[in-house]
Amino acid sequence: VMIIERLSALRALMREHGLSAYIIPGTDPHASEYMADRWKEITWITGFKGETGTVLVTLDEAFLWTDSRYYLQADKELAGTTVELMRESDLDTPSIPEWLNTHIATGSKVGVNPEMFSVQGYATLGRAIAGNQLSLYSIDLIRPLWIEDRPAIPSDPLFVFEEKYAGESVDSKLARIRAEIRKAGAEAMVISALDEIAWLLNIRGNDVEFNPVVISYVLLEQEKCTLYVAPEKVTAEAQDYFAAHNISVAGYEDIFEHLTHVASSVLFDGAKLNEALYEALPTASKKIDTQSPILRIKSVKNETELAGIRKAMKKDAVALTRFFKWLEEEAFASGETLTEYDLMEKLYTCRAEQENFVEESFGTIAGYGANGAIVHYGATKEDCAVVEPHGILLLDSGGQYLDGTTDITRTVCLDEPTTQMKRDFTLVLKGHIALACARFPRGTRGNQLDVLARQFLWQEGLHYGHGTGHGVGHFLSCHEGPQNIRMDNNPTPLQIGNVCSDEPGLYRTGEYGIRTENLITVVPVESNEFGEFYGWETLTLCFYDTKLFDLSIMTEQEIAWVNAYHQRVIDEICPLLNADEAAWLRKKCEAVG
Amino acid sequence: VMIIERLSALRALMREHGLSAYIIPGTDPHASEYMADRWKEITWITGFKGETGTVLVTLDEAFLWTDSRYYLQADKELAGTTVELMRESDLDTPSIPEWLNTHIATGSKVGVNPEMFSVQGYATLGRAIAGNQLSLYSIDLIRPLWIEDRPAIPSDPLFVFEEKYAGESVDSKLARIRAEIRKAGAEAMVISALDEIAWLLNIRGNDVEFNPVVISYVLLEQEKCTLYVAPEKVTAEAQDYFAAHNISVAGYEDIFEHLTHVASSVLFDGAKLNEALYEALPTASKKIDTQSPILRIKSVKNETELAGIRKAMKKDAVALTRFFKWLEEEAFASGETLTEYDLMEKLYTCRAEQENFVEESFGTIAGYGANGAIVHYGATKEDCAVVEPHGILLLDSGGQYLDGTTDITRTVCLDEPTTQMKRDFTLVLKGHIALACARFPRGTRGNQLDVLARQFLWQEGLHYGHGTGHGVGHFLSCHEGPQNIRMDNNPTPLQIGNVCSDEPGLYRTGEYGIRTENLITVVPVESNEFGEFYGWETLTLCFYDTKLFDLSIMTEQEIAWVNAYHQRVIDEICPLLNADEAAWLRKKCEAVG
Repeated sequence: VMIIERLSALRALMREHGLSAYIIPGTDPHASEYMADRWKEITWITGFKGETGTVLVTLDEAFLWTDSRYYLQADKELAGTTVELMRESDLDTPSIPEWLNTHIATGSKVGVNPEMFSVQGYATLGRAIAGNQLSLYSIDLIRPLWIEDRPAIPSDPLFVFEEKYAGESVDSKLARIRAEIRKAGAEAMVISALDEIAWLLNIRGNDVEFNPVVISYVLLEQEKCTLYVAPEKVTAEAQDYFAAHNISVAGYEDIFEHLTHVASSVLFDGAKLNEALYEALPTASKKIDTQSPILRIKSVKNETELAGIRKAMKKDAVALTRFFKWLEEEAFASGETLTEYDLMEKLYTCRAEQENFVEESFGTIAGYGANGAIVHYGATKEDCAVVEPHGILLLDSGGQYLDGTTDITRTVCLDEPTTQMKRDFTLVLKGHIALACARFPRGTRGNQLDVLARQFLWQEGLHYGHGTGHGVGHFLSCHEGPQNIRMDNNPTPLQIGNVCSDEPGLYRTGEYGIRTENLITVVPVESNEFGEFYGWETLTLCFYDTKLFDLSIMTEQEIAWVNAYHQRVIDEICPLLNADEAAWLRKKCEAVG
Repeated sequence: VMIIERLSALRALMREHGLSAYIIPGTDPHASEYMADRWKEITWITGFKGETGTVLVTLDEAFLWTDSRYYLQADKELAGTTVELMRESDLDTPSIPEWLNTHIATGSKVGVNPEMFSVQGYATLGRAIAGNQLSLYSIDLIRPLWIEDRPAIPSDPLFVFEEKYAGESVDSKLARIRAEIRKAGAEAMVISALDEIAWLLNIRGNDVEFNPVVISYVLLEQEKCTLYVAPEKVTAEAQDYFAAHNISVAGYEDIFEHLTHVASSVLFDGAKLNEALYEALPTASKKIDTQSPILRIKSVKNETELAGIRKAMKKDAVALTRFFKWLEEEAFASGETLTEYDLMEKLYTCRAEQENFVEESFGTIAGYGANGAIVHYGATKEDCAVVEPHGILLLDSGGQYLDGTTDITRTVCLDEPTTQMKRDFTLVLKGHIALACARFPRGTRGNQLDVLARQFLWQEGLHYGHGTGHGVGHFLSCHEGPQNIRMDNNPTPLQIGNVCSDEPGLYRTGEYGIRTENLITVVPVESNEFGEFYGWETLTLCFYDTKLFDLSIMTEQEIAWVNAYHQRVIDEICPLLNADEAAWLRKKCEAVG
């Protein structure tokens, strides 16, 4: 009923502005992966609580587009709301522009809140409906309706991320990015990506789950840098810090007014900047839409960041070792029911004991049995499987430590694996090792190396539908660009200091999922007459479940690689454990072959 | 002196038309790899006879841009001509637009013959100088000057390429391409690429070296197809053929007039169509610049074409076996001097004995010793090395048979190889095998597989600077698109029936070059819940020099692959040889390991 009232209030406003349709995408003004509650407009207007979706409201209908992961949930949550589910993973479901082009009268106006669209997304949508004489109309119709119970922007204080962790002063970063702005022929840059702001200013916060960012904007000019942020977030310490580094502070939304009299040439990343900020720029200003220079520079970790990540990896390994020891020795001992959610809680506890642990870097995926084959599976307390002491468990998790961000997947078998499980696990492992061992000339892109991780599966007619590797931030987003290791074309060459995941997998629907993931970083190997060659250093330090190895299909080199890795785990992690734990880990790391 | 007079005559014309500069690119109106003599304008205006170059003439200077392969030759041939050499491989040499932007007065006009530029090349050049207020001016200034001794377009008759070789009737091809034109929203298509015309109309000719094409244009409309070609090339038989298939014939240059009243929407491939044809299109017509649909369809060989290619491969193998037997047993026996050029001639003779042999598919590369390390090496009778019975010989060659086109590289050692030679050869061979054995899901692009051929070299800090594989035509161009196997991004997925080369290499400057090349074709392997998987069938059937194998770095699978391949060579080629030859080949194909 509340939903129906809200929809009807929205339609009244739509009529006032002469709009035939209104689109609410499930995003925020910063193109974030994780959103503050304030921007969960889709939940407010439809009741749907899933993480991905787009709502389209017309004067007499309303639709939610979402993917197959959320069909069941949407069916339940949309019941009685008049909002219809559009099953976006189904081949015959039209896209939103396709739906508009065939259902809305030529010449109509389609309303969108420009804060919720990137400049490029807005332009693409506009072009897709222009052929049918439909036009976009920029207006925020949720703001005047959702007032009383709307969560404010989180007011948690931001904090200065110390140089002993960041490895580079804010002054140095500002100087480097200002030089990049000038090189691109611009005078100023508008930044709305929260991880880019956090990196640039060496600040962190607690505004969204999993990513320690601060909800804010930055306008970076040659002589001035302004952070637009809710004033209650700026502590006295932060105030001093900003003052000391010539960073002005203004209210979060003051940027819209400030942009109207900004420098004559402005750089922005149209894939991320929201359309509303773009529209606020003076018509006469020269607008340079290019990949953010921060993106590339941030992806090259400095020595301090890498040293921190190595430290975080050791802590993560200690936590995981304790977790897996508990799982093997205690979890099933009491005879009480054990669920996937219990595993998630236990793992959280193990990580939380570690020094400088802040939070998890994403929601743990504990996929037991067939649930492991659901790639984006997320168990909840209310909806999760019971774990029994047999079969396969896939565990993908990560931590945010002040030293760095971790992301690791291990697949273990809770009793004796079948021949097929061992073969599947080993084919994935062979690819994981091949990528970790790759050497390649400077200029090589991740998409050139992707096949190394897939080749053994492909050879047997097997395949996984996700990327092999993503970039990882330093005490920032677990997923960051611009580099990655995927099948898709990506022009970004790998650079020394890039951190990537190496995570091939295999998913047997209804049976189990397998994934093995380490983080790896690009290191120089040699320079000679044939060029400059790079390779990888493996950062993650946690044992593999050797019970799942099929040694008969592994080469001597692969076996030697695993044994050397396990020796490294023993050498680096055992000293951090008590005698009992160390003995247990040593057994897990016993040489094979 | 003649050159100076020609340049001065050109400058007089330039002044007449108010041009500050005139560019003569070393191309023809068909964006061909090999040109008829008629279009060797660069040689006429500068005396330079190299295969690649661009000439820029200003009112008081003249320059030739060419790459490092031709520096010596250009120095010699340009002496006394006043034409200066621009060493294009040197990092500090400006590009032509860069030179123009810094040396030509703002507002000047730069003349170019639009027949010699692709639509896209013309636009790119225009944009590159527009910032400096320079503009392109379309005019052919060579035509009025080079009259007397200018070679005509070759008048050799064209011939109908029988369906028993082509495997698809011209009617079927025309219907398929017309459907593609409609699908792209156009009514007609202009075609200037000679291999596309030859494929589409099932015709071949003898107009340029190495590629059996016919110099012509085609205008393909929904109800009409017109071939624009010199009338003396159309025999009575060809006339009947064209009449029977509703193909009109008009004079070669009549297309320019015909295009002025063409259909209202025209498709063309702007990467290939020359700018002059584009400029002839009516201003009001809708112009759709897209990759030629012929390109993709032509790249998928039909069963007849593949059967023909397999036949051609056997003949090529017989020729190469005889050549290598001669090289081992007779070439050095007489004690007379043996040169690279002698090898080229002998190999030509061996191929020419084969049924349906037409010509070589490119100039044989016989690189002895250090010459093998020069990637585009071409020996001539006057300038070639003496071959002695030791060291390494790289031999890259191919034939045009009515059945199909071949392209093969073998590297042999004329005495006992060193340890380094064996290691280098084997690292290349391992990559060659890995690519040939690859399996991959439908949709995979060549640039995803490229690393398979490079991985073993990269692992040792070695690298080659050329692509791993190119597409190959069927009794057509030895190099064809759209697919390839290279490091560069190329969005084209591999399709069943594509033919590619598999040719990794390694080049040690001043020592030797190694390359091993087979042709391979995409075949279906299996379909299952994980997708549709493709693999390769190896087409080429010639032994490898096992003397160069370093078995210690080969896997069991690699050794088994070579032994199986050699058994196939024995089974398929020995029956085509005399007893003596067969015995020799059997020895070459003895199992290793």
